[in-house]
Amino acid sequence: MRGFNNSEFEQRTAKAQALMAEHQFSAILLTNEADVRYFTGYLTRFWESPCRPWYLIIPAAGKPVAVIPSIGGALMRSTWIDDVRTWRAPDMQDDGVTLLSQALQQIAPDGRIATPSGMQSWLRMPQNYYHQLLANLGISKLLCDANIVRDLRMVKSPEEVAKIRHACQIAARAFERMGEIAKAGVPLSKVWREFQMLCLDEGADWVPYLSIGVGELGYTDVISPAGDTPLREGDILMLDTGLIYDGYFCDYCRNFAIGHGDKQVQEAWHTLMRATQAGIEAGKPGAKASDVFKAMDEVLTGGKGIGDTGRLGHGLGTQLTELPSLIATDHTILQEGMVITLEPSIVLTDGGVIVHEDNYVVAANGLQALSPAAATDLPIL
Amino acid sequence: MRGFNNSEFEQRTAKAQALMAEHQFSAILLTNEADVRYFTGYLTRFWESPCRPWYLIIPAAGKPVAVIPSIGGALMRSTWIDDVRTWRAPDMQDDGVTLLSQALQQIAPDGRIATPSGMQSWLRMPQNYYHQLLANLGISKLLCDANIVRDLRMVKSPEEVAKIRHACQIAARAFERMGEIAKAGVPLSKVWREFQMLCLDEGADWVPYLSIGVGELGYTDVISPAGDTPLREGDILMLDTGLIYDGYFCDYCRNFAIGHGDKQVQEAWHTLMRATQAGIEAGKPGAKASDVFKAMDEVLTGGKGIGDTGRLGHGLGTQLTELPSLIATDHTILQEGMVITLEPSIVLTDGGVIVHEDNYVVAANGLQALSPAAATDLPIL
Repeated sequence: MRGFNNSEFEQRTAKAQALMAEHQFSAILLTNEADVRYFTGYLTRFWESPCRPWYLIIPAAGKPVAVIPSIGGALMRSTWIDDVRTWRAPDMQDDGVTLLSQALQQIAPDGRIATPSGMQSWLRMPQNYYHQLLANLGISKLLCDANIVRDLRMVKSPEEVAKIRHACQIAARAFERMGEIAKAGVPLSKVWREFQMLCLDEGADWVPYLSIGVGELGYTDVISPAGDTPLREGDILMLDTGLIYDGYFCDYCRNFAIGHGDKQVQEAWHTLMRATQAGIEAGKPGAKASDVFKAMDEVLTGGKGIGDTGRLGHGLGTQLTELPSLIATDHTILQEGMVITLEPSIVLTDGGVIVHEDNYVVAANGLQALSPAAATDLPIL
Repeated sequence: MRGFNNSEFEQRTAKAQALMAEHQFSAILLTNEADVRYFTGYLTRFWESPCRPWYLIIPAAGKPVAVIPSIGGALMRSTWIDDVRTWRAPDMQDDGVTLLSQALQQIAPDGRIATPSGMQSWLRMPQNYYHQLLANLGISKLLCDANIVRDLRMVKSPEEVAKIRHACQIAARAFERMGEIAKAGVPLSKVWREFQMLCLDEGADWVPYLSIGVGELGYTDVISPAGDTPLREGDILMLDTGLIYDGYFCDYCRNFAIGHGDKQVQEAWHTLMRATQAGIEAGKPGAKASDVFKAMDEVLTGGKGIGDTGRLGHGLGTQLTELPSLIATDHTILQEGMVITLEPSIVLTDGGVIVHEDNYVVAANGLQALSPAAATDLPIL
């Protein structure tokens, strides 16, 4: 099924409002795609255009109120939201600021307006508009939302998990077809483009993210666009896909040896598999994100901590990466319904790295795989 | 050629610094992908992960200084930037705020730090970090950058224009192959996915944006993901692509009649072509964005103004949509090197809309097309 029943949005909103009451927030102001969509179901690629701001207000009671450019009015009115206020954007004189100010004055006359303010959040509106808004409201700043939105979004409903699982299955079918596109002599950039085509062919709605790494003894760069250098016999090739199905990501990677795998690489690969297994065993409800990190890091480095990637996994959902982070200092408690990646990495002797990543949902009895089981040995193309 | 010579970044930085001197800014702080890339060449899809903030500081003199997560350190050091300061992100205690504060205290001890603050900008960092930064610096807010960055980015170098032209040519080859994927009976969602595959097959690095519209007498929704309804004989189908080549977008659309085109649709199509021609004739250097709007709107509505889409074209480049906006109130003066879209739309009698869009660079003698000439008549599939 595409989308969600309205009851899903009702529940999300009711949970937010219960937490808002604890903090005496009269409104939460949302400005980013993932947050706006979470409470409305408003799904569009139109956010790719940075020209227009979009606002959603969660009141203390009742349905959220949308204050958005008129180009999105019809689509927003097709969601469960009733109160959709629009202006014709862009407007050089008053680009929605008065409309937003009036809505907030009406909904939160006491000025107790919060907005997501912690890690992985930002206020997606021009600073000039923000300062005008504060002046209109007679307040000095928006309040931090006490991580209400982040904490709600971290725990997925079964319907959300099903979409992530579906996205993982699409990627799995694309990975099974790697032999069609990758072998010695093929330029890396061609593999990069054609893997995105395989993802689309297997049912991805779109492919916002694909990282690629290649090298003989691990890869040194996993964030650049692919260059035109051909794959060579003996290379290890890594593809890390973030594809979208119905607004939800998968985020996992697969490694392949081209022709044959170096012995050191094979051994590293088996270490990654052991680290993953340690993560799975540690990832019970009630454990902390840092516990999972420590279990994996013990296998990878003997507990010495890791390198520049910064973490050994993270949440995912409507965004490619969400919180929590699997690092030594993130003590977020795992709860049923959280979806996380386990992403162990190992540095080889020449400084190259090998990464493995899979996706899991936290179930009552521990981590349940959403991505398919990795091969026992490093696959060879 | 991929990327740019360093001289390009030197020139961009020197121009920014000349303008900064006029405003007595000691630093400009940049936090968004397009702005950071503009001054560094730092190109990666890793921004898809919202977890980490990234900072670039333009000082009053000398090269920009990067303050970024260590995962990006190696790639940033491969650009022309020398001073790359990193922290291991995410960090639950101090996620780069102290490092950024120290850099800004050193570069701008007078606290005259500006940041893009107008339309189409936002501060991509958590509000909590922002307030901590202000406290560390002992200032009450960042200054508005007087649109320095926006104004520089609006005028493209010949090398930038070449990349946009290349992106347009990739899309053109994909549009020529529409007959392979679209005909009556094919679900719209399949056309949507397969057109993205065509773009990749023809050389797109990735496809961040593809909007689709379909209907008998125009389309009523151009921002939703495609549904599974099959194309029907007599439909008009519109695809609007924003694909990426080497970090630069094209953004234009094509319409196709499935089997045959309705007479009213055909007439509307010819009106769109006439409006485009009027826009081309008005789009000389020295003319205002609003002049181009008025010339097109005269053809489309007799000068009555337009509907909810809000504008009849816009800038493009490293972002799908950039400023200026072709609206009645945007009086930005067209300069050689600006790249814009002309995007006339017309509402049919049943309320459906038809849109046409092409891409142009402002040359000495007027608008020069970057996307290929549209067909004389509405193409039929």
